Amino acid sequence: MGFTEAAPGSVMIEMGGTMVLCTATVEEKTPPWMVGKGGWVTAEYAMLPGSSSPRIRRDHYQKGRAKEISRLIGRSLRAVVNLKAMGDCSIRVDCDVIQADGGTRTAAITGGWLAMIEALAWAASRGIANAEAGFDQVAAISVGMVEGEVLLDLDYRDDHAADVDLNVVMAGRGLLVEVQGTAEGALFDRADLDRMLDLAEKGISELFSVQRQALGQ
Amino acid sequence: MGFTEAAPGSVMIEMGGTMVLCTATVEEKTPPWMVGKGGWVTAEYAMLPGSSSPRIRRDHYQKGRAKEISRLIGRSLRAVVNLKAMGDCSIRVDCDVIQADGGTRTAAITGGWLAMIEALAWAASRGIANAEAGFDQVAAISVGMVEGEVLLDLDYRDDHAADVDLNVVMAGRGLLVEVQGTAEGALFDRADLDRMLDLAEKGISELFSVQRQALGQ
Amino acid sequence: MGFTEAAPGSVMIEMGGTMVLCTATVEEKTPPWMVGKGGWVTAEYAMLPGSSSPRIRRDHYQKGRAKEISRLIGRSLRAVVNLKAMGDCSIRVDCDVIQADGGTRTAAITGGWLAMIEALAWAASRGIANAEAGFDQVAAISVGMVEGEVLLDLDYRDDHAADVDLNVVMAGRGLLVEVQGTAEGALFDRADLDRMLDLAEKGISELFSVQRQALGQ
Amino acid sequence: MGFTEAAPGSVMIEMGGTMVLCTATVEEKTPPWMVGKGGWVTAEYAMLPGSSSPRIRRDHYQKGRAKEISRLIGRSLRAVVNLKAMGDCSIRVDCDVIQADGGTRTAAITGGWLAMIEALAWAASRGIANAEAGFDQVAAISVGMVEGEVLLDLDYRDDHAADVDLNVVMAGRGLLVEVQGTAEGALFDRADLDRMLDLAEKGISELFSVQRQALGQ
Amino acid sequence: MGFTEAAPGSVMIEMGGTMVLCTATVEEKTPPWMVGKGGWVTAEYAMLPGSSSPRIRRDHYQKGRAKEISRLIGRSLRAVVNLKAMGDCSIRVDCDVIQADGGTRTAAITGGWLAMIEALAWAASRGIANAEAGFDQVAAISVGMVEGEVLLDLDYRDDHAADVDLNVVMAGRGLLVEVQGTAEGALFDRADLDRMLDLAEKGISELFSVQRQALGQ
Amino acid sequence: MGFTEAAPGSVMIEMGGTMVLCTATVEEKTPPWMVGKGGWVTAEYAMLPGSSSPRIRRDHYQKGRAKEISRLIGRSLRAVVNLKAMGDCSIRVDCDVIQADGGTRTAAITGGWLAMIEALAWAASRGIANAEAGFDQVAAISVGMVEGEVLLDLDYRDDHAADVDLNVVMAGRGLLVEVQGTAEGALFDRADLDRMLDLAEKGISELFSVQRQALGQ
Repeated sequence: MGFTEAAPGSVMIEMGGTMVLCTATVEEKTPPWMVGKGGWVTAEYAMLPGSSSPRIRRDHYQKGRAKEISRLIGRSLRAVVNLKAMGDCSIRVDCDVIQADGGTRTAAITGGWLAMIEALAWAASRGIANAEAGFDQVAAISVGMVEGEVLLDLDYRDDHAADVDLNVVMAGRGLLVEVQGTAEGALFDRADLDRMLDLAEKGISELFSVQRQALGQ
Repeated sequence: MGFTEAAPGSVMIEMGGTMVLCTATVEEKTPPWMVGKGGWVTAEYAMLPGSSSPRIRRDHYQKGRAKEISRLIGRSLRAVVNLKAMGDCSIRVDCDVIQADGGTRTAAITGGWLAMIEALAWAASRGIANAEAGFDQVAAISVGMVEGEVLLDLDYRDDHAADVDLNVVMAGRGLLVEVQGTAEGALFDRADLDRMLDLAEKGISELFSVQRQALGQ
Repeated sequence: MGFTEAAPGSVMIEMGGTMVLCTATVEEKTPPWMVGKGGWVTAEYAMLPGSSSPRIRRDHYQKGRAKEISRLIGRSLRAVVNLKAMGDCSIRVDCDVIQADGGTRTAAITGGWLAMIEALAWAASRGIANAEAGFDQVAAISVGMVEGEVLLDLDYRDDHAADVDLNVVMAGRGLLVEVQGTAEGALFDRADLDRMLDLAEKGISELFSVQRQALGQ
Repeated sequence: MGFTEAAPGSVMIEMGGTMVLCTATVEEKTPPWMVGKGGWVTAEYAMLPGSSSPRIRRDHYQKGRAKEISRLIGRSLRAVVNLKAMGDCSIRVDCDVIQADGGTRTAAITGGWLAMIEALAWAASRGIANAEAGFDQVAAISVGMVEGEVLLDLDYRDDHAADVDLNVVMAGRGLLVEVQGTAEGALFDRADLDRMLDLAEKGISELFSVQRQALGQ
Repeated sequence: MGFTEAAPGSVMIEMGGTMVLCTATVEEKTPPWMVGKGGWVTAEYAMLPGSSSPRIRRDHYQKGRAKEISRLIGRSLRAVVNLKAMGDCSIRVDCDVIQADGGTRTAAITGGWLAMIEALAWAASRGIANAEAGFDQVAAISVGMVEGEVLLDLDYRDDHAADVDLNVVMAGRGLLVEVQGTAEGALFDRADLDRMLDLAEKGISELFSVQRQALGQ
Repeated sequence: MGFTEAAPGSVMIEMGGTMVLCTATVEEKTPPWMVGKGGWVTAEYAMLPGSSSPRIRRDHYQKGRAKEISRLIGRSLRAVVNLKAMGDCSIRVDCDVIQADGGTRTAAITGGWLAMIEALAWAASRGIANAEAGFDQVAAISVGMVEGEVLLDLDYRDDHAADVDLNVVMAGRGLLVEVQGTAEGALFDRADLDRMLDLAEKGISELFSVQRQALGQ
């Protein structure tokens, strides 16, 4: 935490080889659809060109995918914030992938939550926002099936070999925020889904502990 | 089926007020990563400006979301095609929403499969593709929870009231292709997820019957 | 008429193999240059990717041509509307080509007028617009010369063989709104132009009858 | 003629207050659809920001209109060139409006023809093209109706007051290349059209004399 | 001066084969950061497609470089204007390269200053601006080293052979506004820099004389 | 050095509050103008949205400036590489500003050189490039004048107060690669320029020591 000082929230999260810098900034205005109704939280996700090998072209090549992930992160963070009670401001969480080795979107959610909480506390200390609006933790993890076996937090190598890829976003009370499962190589049945969800739940409860430690709780 | 004649596959699918025109065209080339390895199936999704009220701005306003849905449709169709056995050609399925009343992406998958099968048969009759490569059916449906109740195929009104929105894509043998569940207003637990998946499975088996009828089977 | 229900005006016009879906929507505001001076009518024209063979690339490939046609449709519709008397609102007519077999721009004008009149009536019933502002009919047709012979409403095959291509837009009282004649293969003289205009006038008077029937007049 | 030296054809045409710089350049390749079949002629039209008052925004604001005019110029020039006999090269005519006072598109055609002929002669002298391929002159003029009166070559003031605006492109043998008539304020009848075409024909025959003088003929 | 009449300031500057048309227009508003604080001066630089051989692609190919030069011209002009005393208006100087033969950016600054002064006088005569705000002259020249020799105002041929390229912008009192020196082929030492600056100073004092003559001083 | 592992060269350079991540990647191809003539080095510079306060909009807002800086970095690095001797490959140096507190472009050059050298060694160890091609060090620093006083390496606060801003890029033998001096608030004379260059030279020699230490020399 506090990796940089320019933004009120700044977290460098590392999971395996994956490194994501999450910075959260605060603006004292809200988008048109929330004016007079509360605050807003949004996210932007991008990969640095040198974060992966071969190098990723800046701008061009994966815009649609990056926007899809940006929306996922934004939805996940908003799910644990009481927007109405938050105050008339917006928090924008930028998640820039410094190094990619699988699970960048889930690392961005887990780290982005920490940056958002930092920014919310910063804004509360200035009387702009209500820190209580962040009512729960949120974290995410990827699970996969490789040759019939269920694996947690796939790195890049496993990710490409996986038959099924499941991203799970959970809130602190064991509730589901988002479930995205995709058959990559082989289809999966309901029993597979259950086994993957069980494993994800365990992994996420560990992430919750790490988040609380980072906040000194 | 056969709504237009310019494209080898052409299906107008209506589900409630939702209307999606799915056209499938064939090109005798494959993208760089499949050259010499087989065929390819891809999809593009877009909404006509007058398909919704208020009118949707052409081009601008929802590009990221449209690309996300395009990729979902493409992945779903490829899950039931043996690309290696398909032959050196590409099928492109365009899903243009004529009228939107909830569930446009799932209607696009269900109708897009029919258009793809038509195009595959057309290409097979010209010796370009192998019709057997399409080894299974695929269809999709949305399920939701509104005030604790599980509902099938939400229309636009229900969709906006829903606490949870779950899109399920299934293949003909009861296997899962894609599961995308999102907490919109309230979080959900594993039991809710199970109830929604049960209902989706029933709905999709009906869609499979309708698909087979449309093909005269 | 009434092909869809999401937009107040919705017309599917078919001329030979050509199918154009014209939807008209109403906004209670006017562009900057008309504020306080009356209403406005504008149009957008586009081809669906599967409307032609080979498939048309979405967005990219014919943007300039599509905008040129959009402006032509807009000018043609405004020529028969008394903008000052129309009320402080805008009607936007979207013309999406479902299938292209020649004459898509002229079909869009003829069908677009019906959609505009529907939308105007809808807006008048809500007190937003004055239905009397639409003071005349407008319709359009293409005429061409193929090997010295004058032909009405060229389909795609004739269109490509034509030496001259003339698009004529006429109002209900036999007056000209727009004349666009282009030598494609051979130049033409004044006598040729007269013969083509005579034929266009006959064709358009038939279109006026069809329009009145569609409106139940 | 010869306003600049960087391009093989370079003509500054002035008509009233309107000034258009037409430069023609030659490339020893042809677009895909003409490879092995002959040469090609194309045009690009743009207005300098300071050419009009108020200033015109660079790039943004009138792209569609500029492309429409570019295509008109290109079609008009190609109408008097025997592409098959021209040789395997392309001539590109850039028409940049230095000052706009009405009739910029017609001035661009009239001046663009001179630049094209210069470039063709230049290319012929290098053995790249066949100068005989330019078999005829082409010139253009705008005619309009203001309060019932037919006027030639409207300047900006007249242009905005005009009820009808007619652009006529003619080849040297009195044949029509392009006729574009638009009702701006009032509709027009066939007799009006004839009167405007008569006047245009006179004006264009004068332009042909000026073109021949410029070429020293 | 007065090359065109549409813009209040209009100067065609020729230096060797280089021709740049500089037009200056006035708007009675200022950018957000100057509202209530004074006026603003900005510039845009572009090359006409036919200004160089081979032809330059419109729009695409050198956008970054054109923006860099635009900013340089804007900074240079603002350095000799007292923005606070100028009045609530903006002057925009468009520098369009008609023919390029080396030194286009420096010609644009030297000519752009004349156009700006003309526009300032025009605006002052209408009570919009204060002509005294332009408190000094500004002009620019390029110097280079070719095989160890220092040369003034390199044309295109020299420019490409130069080992060092130095652009110098100076105000009327012998003061420096901008110094941009770049090693193209060989590095340079402080003594080289001094020799180049000496030569530039001489060249610029001649340009100041020409500017004063053009203004009739 | 070695901040990440995905790219062969990876350096996080900190100067005051400024942090720039420089990654260098190698491609075994060269741009069209160098094919068969040697290798190439290029750079891209960008600021992360959260690197500055207020937040910087991704993509939009400073594209021109970022490209200008990218070109400066690329030129500076190429000045100390013997491209002909380098081998048929390209090194691309991405400089992403993690935190901005003045002098980001000069930090990017100093750190980018280290990343380039790492990548060159990596490529040489694989037989792709010749490590000797990097024949000299290059580093850069900014100098400024604030109220008549000459200051080294301005932070953001000083940078905005500076009357003159001078960026100096030097090679290891005390030779100049690039000099960019800009009058921001007050013009400067030749004596000021000399004082600033003296100070820059001292600062850069210290940077050279740090670079050599980082490389273990």
